[in-house]
Amino acid sequence: MSSKGGKKKDFEAVFPSLVEDLKENAKQYNIPADALKWYEDSLNYNTMGGKLNRGISVPDSASTLLGGPLTKEDYHLTATLGWLTELLQAFFLVSDDIMDSSITRRGQPCWYKKPAVGMIAINDAFMLEASIYILLKKHFKTHPEYAEFIELFHEVTFQTELGQTCDLLTAPEDHVDLDQFSPEKHSFIVIYKTAYYSFYLPVALALHYLQLATPETLQQSKDILIPLGEYFQIQDDYLDCFGSPETIGKIGTDIQDNKCSWLINQALKRASPQQRKTLDECYGRKDAAMEKKAKEVFNELELEKVYLEYEENAVGEIRERIAKIDENHGLKRAVFEDFLGKIYKRTK
Amino acid sequence: MSSKGGKKKDFEAVFPSLVEDLKENAKQYNIPADALKWYEDSLNYNTMGGKLNRGISVPDSASTLLGGPLTKEDYHLTATLGWLTELLQAFFLVSDDIMDSSITRRGQPCWYKKPAVGMIAINDAFMLEASIYILLKKHFKTHPEYAEFIELFHEVTFQTELGQTCDLLTAPEDHVDLDQFSPEKHSFIVIYKTAYYSFYLPVALALHYLQLATPETLQQSKDILIPLGEYFQIQDDYLDCFGSPETIGKIGTDIQDNKCSWLINQALKRASPQQRKTLDECYGRKDAAMEKKAKEVFNELELEKVYLEYEENAVGEIRERIAKIDENHGLKRAVFEDFLGKIYKRTK
Repeated sequence: MSSKGGKKKDFEAVFPSLVEDLKENAKQYNIPADALKWYEDSLNYNTMGGKLNRGISVPDSASTLLGGPLTKEDYHLTATLGWLTELLQAFFLVSDDIMDSSITRRGQPCWYKKPAVGMIAINDAFMLEASIYILLKKHFKTHPEYAEFIELFHEVTFQTELGQTCDLLTAPEDHVDLDQFSPEKHSFIVIYKTAYYSFYLPVALALHYLQLATPETLQQSKDILIPLGEYFQIQDDYLDCFGSPETIGKIGTDIQDNKCSWLINQALKRASPQQRKTLDECYGRKDAAMEKKAKEVFNELELEKVYLEYEENAVGEIRERIAKIDENHGLKRAVFEDFLGKIYKRTK
Repeated sequence: MSSKGGKKKDFEAVFPSLVEDLKENAKQYNIPADALKWYEDSLNYNTMGGKLNRGISVPDSASTLLGGPLTKEDYHLTATLGWLTELLQAFFLVSDDIMDSSITRRGQPCWYKKPAVGMIAINDAFMLEASIYILLKKHFKTHPEYAEFIELFHEVTFQTELGQTCDLLTAPEDHVDLDQFSPEKHSFIVIYKTAYYSFYLPVALALHYLQLATPETLQQSKDILIPLGEYFQIQDDYLDCFGSPETIGKIGTDIQDNKCSWLINQALKRASPQQRKTLDECYGRKDAAMEKKAKEVFNELELEKVYLEYEENAVGEIRERIAKIDENHGLKRAVFEDFLGKIYKRTK
């Protein structure tokens, strides 16, 4: 399990057995064959095709915390927990795509965009979420931290939904009002909508699995992983505008989509009255010429430079927090160094 | 708490404190004010205005099981459990309305139909569901059956989603194929989509609350409440076509909506080739003349009579099961007699 590609393969190899578990569970209810097939198709379509970074980081973190390779059983169980984070993400993505009117996801049509699916996708999203608790019950019912696993998933789910609420209210597709944006709102959206489930959840799961979760280890992890997640999303916002489309694999649409991104918030903080006027007129419009004008303001305000300064600051602060970890209480600095290493200066 | 109106008032009086609990919980995350207001509005809009029968039946059943009035604390807690069933229902209704393209619900616009809401309603539905577990944690964390409450809600949620999957696959709005229908599918849809959460859940909650839940009492309850729920939904199908619009408060649309209802399944079982041809041509079409023709076939086949025979049979069987209950193990026949009394021969 050393090479990066091998890691992903090992992790992927666990999923079919979980699909079997879920099918077995559904069969006890005498579910008609077409409904069972539908559920299986949704499970496969909506979890596969991504980078699986969140899921893989559960066994990865567990192995780092233990200081050596996992036994076969520990690998299978922590990879199962990893897949639960991927199911949670699938639940969010299927429904986010409907709410955002997205067309493609991971290079294929969004699930709801498939002709036979449509709004049935809403119920499919629910079933992806329900699958988390079915698998938890099947594989972790006798784990001493079963109740904590459930409560952790419930809380992180709710936090993500809070972030989504704020995101949807702040940046409606059809009504541009830059006064709605603020760095505080950006920070709230990013932390709640992304950082908790993408960064905190996998490490918290590994800590609970190994029974190393205490109020202190959880809080210390949170104090590093939430800023790390915020930094990750700000990078995402930066790359959407300034990254190379060839490298990131898509053409950024944040400006046209009226996104409350880190860049527009930085621009609003620095804009002259004339630049602000241009942004008011051009941001969030489905028009390439207007998008270009908004981007010109970003360039005038040297937002690339602003970003690079932010990055050095943020990473410096995260490194300091990692350095302060007392390894005698179960945490390992390497868990967080690994996360940071994968993110720092990424170009895609 | 004796009169029917008084019962509903007492139950309704509990909800504002639960909304306060949920707001307090959300405030710990420093949620922006507009998002908090949005959540509160969704909680109120989507739980109120209905009959609240499901919710009220939790304290009602508990009181019957105890054989006397509830203490103030027991009432508050069982009413809270009742409100959790109403939140579960709200979660389903908000999303069902989107999936069914419905226009109104309980005499007002569906939540997603309100201009400011739209597809944000999907996320609001998620938050209604999440609210169940937040309130369970707040009020029942120290209850000996806390884990069972959570697992019960998880299982019933999944069962309802399975029923919804089958319903959506069997009767797509835009494609009529009566070969897709069968009495077995109708039964599956009705039991999973409605009976578990509407009938079994409230009694199971009361049993767990009073620590009277054993595999036997739960199974006996299920063996009565699931057929009762099936009967209730078949009544609903019957009233949609043969009930008086003035009494049921709406004009039935099942024929035009291509619903896999009990009536069409009975008609298909009895139709001559000529009648079947008429149904194939006229069922599920958005056309009043065609609807009338389909209804004429229902009348030719004397489906009102078929229904009344079914009803007597079904109720007879349910009464037999109720009579067989051994009251020495914690169950009381009156719990089920109350349910049946509210349903038998209802006209709305």
